[in-house]
Amino acid sequence: MTARAAPSGWRASARAPAPVAGAEAERFMRLAVREAARGLGRTSPNPAVGAVVVRDGRVVGRGHHARAGGPHAEVVALRAAGALARGADVYTTLEPCDHFGKTPPCSVALLEAGVRRVFVGSSDPNPLVNGRGMARLRRHGVAVVKGVLRDACDRLNAPWFTFITEGRPFVTLKAAVTLDGRIATRTGDARWVSGEAARAWVHRLRDRVDAVLVGAGTARADDPRLTTRLPRGGRDPIRVVLDSDLSLPRTLALFRGGSPAPTLVAHASAAPARRYGPGVELVRCRRGKGGVDLRDLLAKLAARGVAHLLVEGGAHVHARFLEAGLVDRVAVFVAPKIAGGDGVPLVAGRGPARMADALRLEQVAFERVGDDLLVTGVPARRAALAKNPQRG
Amino acid sequence: MTARAAPSGWRASARAPAPVAGAEAERFMRLAVREAARGLGRTSPNPAVGAVVVRDGRVVGRGHHARAGGPHAEVVALRAAGALARGADVYTTLEPCDHFGKTPPCSVALLEAGVRRVFVGSSDPNPLVNGRGMARLRRHGVAVVKGVLRDACDRLNAPWFTFITEGRPFVTLKAAVTLDGRIATRTGDARWVSGEAARAWVHRLRDRVDAVLVGAGTARADDPRLTTRLPRGGRDPIRVVLDSDLSLPRTLALFRGGSPAPTLVAHASAAPARRYGPGVELVRCRRGKGGVDLRDLLAKLAARGVAHLLVEGGAHVHARFLEAGLVDRVAVFVAPKIAGGDGVPLVAGRGPARMADALRLEQVAFERVGDDLLVTGVPARRAALAKNPQRG
Repeated sequence: MTARAAPSGWRASARAPAPVAGAEAERFMRLAVREAARGLGRTSPNPAVGAVVVRDGRVVGRGHHARAGGPHAEVVALRAAGALARGADVYTTLEPCDHFGKTPPCSVALLEAGVRRVFVGSSDPNPLVNGRGMARLRRHGVAVVKGVLRDACDRLNAPWFTFITEGRPFVTLKAAVTLDGRIATRTGDARWVSGEAARAWVHRLRDRVDAVLVGAGTARADDPRLTTRLPRGGRDPIRVVLDSDLSLPRTLALFRGGSPAPTLVAHASAAPARRYGPGVELVRCRRGKGGVDLRDLLAKLAARGVAHLLVEGGAHVHARFLEAGLVDRVAVFVAPKIAGGDGVPLVAGRGPARMADALRLEQVAFERVGDDLLVTGVPARRAALAKNPQRG
Repeated sequence: MTARAAPSGWRASARAPAPVAGAEAERFMRLAVREAARGLGRTSPNPAVGAVVVRDGRVVGRGHHARAGGPHAEVVALRAAGALARGADVYTTLEPCDHFGKTPPCSVALLEAGVRRVFVGSSDPNPLVNGRGMARLRRHGVAVVKGVLRDACDRLNAPWFTFITEGRPFVTLKAAVTLDGRIATRTGDARWVSGEAARAWVHRLRDRVDAVLVGAGTARADDPRLTTRLPRGGRDPIRVVLDSDLSLPRTLALFRGGSPAPTLVAHASAAPARRYGPGVELVRCRRGKGGVDLRDLLAKLAARGVAHLLVEGGAHVHARFLEAGLVDRVAVFVAPKIAGGDGVPLVAGRGPARMADALRLEQVAFERVGDDLLVTGVPARRAALAKNPQRG
């Protein structure tokens, strides 16, 4: 690799040594990941990105992308480093952008700052963009090492990757079940399946997603607020309720305001729109089997910048998302208790005839949260739950 | 504490120093626990006991109770130590027996060997016996420290403790469920919910229990053998099947022999006994609500020396045991998969109306076994699962 003449105003450093991503690189990338995490749930439809500037083994600047419209992580970190950025290394969780818009791209900002090497975590998921930022840097003599802590960096923005590549929000299905798989008793009572620590975890998750969705049954039975309630505040996600025929009572907590975030009523009704209070919006979708067409709804949510949607019940909504193959991640708290009998199952519908056809989860992780167990996983090959062929 | 004159033939050592159960004592007791574990599942109706003899910080003898009728652990360990036992310390997982039967009690054997100190794990659960062995040792100048690694020692013989104090077998309910709590699909297909490692774990458990029980529905649907199939052999438990009206086909694997262990058919039928092949025995029980009276059956099993019974399904049998408050421990494998819909639940029946009335587990432990998660726990205060008041 040879240092080439940089355009006016850009001064590439002398030829950088062949870089190796070792333990030190991973240590600094971990700091960048931590930076990035500060922006999680605040940057949609942009990804959460963190960057650190390192000179002589010392961090001289760090930054994260804080909100869509704000400066990118690399720019924040470079500004913090000031003149020390010249000849320094930069660690960034995502490939620097190379898009000329209102401001020059990060690749150019890095060249202008005269950095020596750039360590990259994730590559851009958009195949049209992928590699362009790194190529520009290399053309101007900056050494680029990609794939440093790639798994951690990819995980950080898994929702955004789905959003970019599939044009729909990443869907996390979250639920709390008893050991015998019940989300509520036969009377619908669900207070509480899991313990306080698990419920606090859910609020931290709501703080990081763009929207939360429940079905009409859950809205009616539990009358949830779906707000983020954390000791130190937090940001409410957009609340979405499926109400295909606009039949839910307007007295529900979701319709009474009390949050800066709007409530979207996803319906498939041709009837004249009912009036709701302020902060409630109707989203008319195509009608699918079983209610609102989910793909249509997800496309409409994506258009509003929702990159990560949390589905929080109930059993029929879980079944519809799973059967449509629209669940990207499952997060289920298993509470060490037995509800027994005709309780409400995690997933309604009839399910496959053979156990071998059950929907397998991959990348499974178990974690104790308070008295409960959190099981997370990804549906194998993003498969859909086998639909019951006789289902009406 | 003063050394007293021992009866003829017993020579107590000089007054022993006040003993303290520290890290060293726990280390040797751990060896004794390991010894004891070698007898698990082989000693009923006796407990599994291990002992080590320690002199000058070195193990000079070890032993375990290998089978009912065989020598006790202390005697085996003392024999192994020979003359080195004099003045030595003995670690035993269970209080030495003090019962004069065909052979003198272990308390006497310890005195005859001239040991200096005895470290005890569990005390005898029988209140009529509890402390007698230790008192005899102390009377003769042997220092006794009790409660060393008591929890581990108690756990080892939890089934036997229940057997002694309640006159019925300890009941472990074992099952494998999907994340949505299904033990089988709607068609009854259960092959396989959990993975190979979990199934191997079950065979190791069968090797250690005295009997395994299934309901008629499971016998019919799965036609299980209920034998112990381990790479290095293993011992088959007594197989028990609930068949209140003796309606199961005689062609089932359980009735076809193929195991040194008998199959017991628990029934409540007044009809003349049907004929089965060799190795199959009828056990006539009182008729209770829903079939064979479980308490009556458990008493009959206890009379046969069954101290630990493993209940392996199905959903109705689980419900009957749980509703009767007859489950001492729950061991449920949770497989990271979703069966969905109308599968067979872990527990049949209707269950309580309020989630707050779900049966809570205590002493909960989570353990990854292969791809599955093993959740173990003890029903809180040995409570029964709330029965549905409207149940027929």
